Amino acid sequence: MQNQKNTKLISFIGGDTGCWETLSLTAVAGETLAKSARLNIVKGEDHESSIGSLWTLKAVVSNLRYTNRSEKNALDQNSRALGQPEYDYAALIPIKKSDEWWALTQDERRKIFEEDSQHIRISSKYLSMISRQLHHCRDLGEPFDFLTWFEFSSGHAHAFDELLNALRKTEEWKFVTREIDIRFKKVM
Amino acid sequence: MQNQKNTKLISFIGGDTGCWETLSLTAVAGETLAKSARLNIVKGEDHESSIGSLWTLKAVVSNLRYTNRSEKNALDQNSRALGQPEYDYAALIPIKKSDEWWALTQDERRKIFEEDSQHIRISSKYLSMISRQLHHCRDLGEPFDFLTWFEFSSGHAHAFDELLNALRKTEEWKFVTREIDIRFKKVM
Repeated sequence: MQNQKNTKLISFIGGDTGCWETLSLTAVAGETLAKSARLNIVKGEDHESSIGSLWTLKAVVSNLRYTNRSEKNALDQNSRALGQPEYDYAALIPIKKSDEWWALTQDERRKIFEEDSQHIRISSKYLSMISRQLHHCRDLGEPFDFLTWFEFSSGHAHAFDELLNALRKTEEWKFVTREIDIRFKKVM
Repeated sequence: MQNQKNTKLISFIGGDTGCWETLSLTAVAGETLAKSARLNIVKGEDHESSIGSLWTLKAVVSNLRYTNRSEKNALDQNSRALGQPEYDYAALIPIKKSDEWWALTQDERRKIFEEDSQHIRISSKYLSMISRQLHHCRDLGEPFDFLTWFEFSSGHAHAFDELLNALRKTEEWKFVTREIDIRFKKVM
């Protein structure tokens, strides 16, 4: 038997290499992570044995779980891809939700996510200035359930804080048991 | 860095060991799998280097993706757990769905899954005689998206065929690009 690798994996490696320099690391809820000097993002193969790394968080880009067609069409119209040259700041927000959240049925989770918390509606206001990619990792047996990666210009760091503050006040966030807020600046 | 293992993994190992003897293996759609003498089911750690195994399919039990509260309550009332002593037959149905399916939004997939195809409604009729567990593997980079495991008594093998025939005629099944139907008999 050949050892099958998950080629969909994206590894976020906190260590001393990578083009993102760590500005700050805050444990918003639950256990913290060590603050590394840099972040390296590696796509494809497993890269956990990187020399000098403090931690490796792995995840995959998966299918949509809550977004409906009309919402997706609106989001697509306003979203900007990652990698905009003027986006010199970034954030990685690893999140874990409670067992209670995961025991809910699809309609119950969707109601809390959007009808009560307006996760999509709140986020959509910021899409023209903040690019983002959600990654899933709960089924991978990782310590977090989601890793969301955001890129924006340093001039919009305040808008990004505003977005996070709004989301953290929602009903949905009552189910968040661990959350780390890590900010980066692009370096060469 | 320690190599982090996915402790949620369940491995279905086609080889020469295990308490399930293979009765038949049919490729319903797409590429087939080799027919092994036995099936071994291993929970927890990665077990792909088993001696004498022809293939290992890995998956995890995950959260509900489409089922609503009222449907779950009805399903729970009629379901019987795996491992009933009189259930001497089993089936493993690995399935892969098309990229087109996965590009649909949540409301579009739910509509096809239940409102058009009555996946839950059709299946619920058989729950008192057929126990089942759905496993997810798409995010693990596996060759299939789902592995569903069924157990029933040999006297209900006909009812199981009826269930599969009904599901395979649905709108949802037009998105199935690979499906293997493997049947087993319990041995000591």
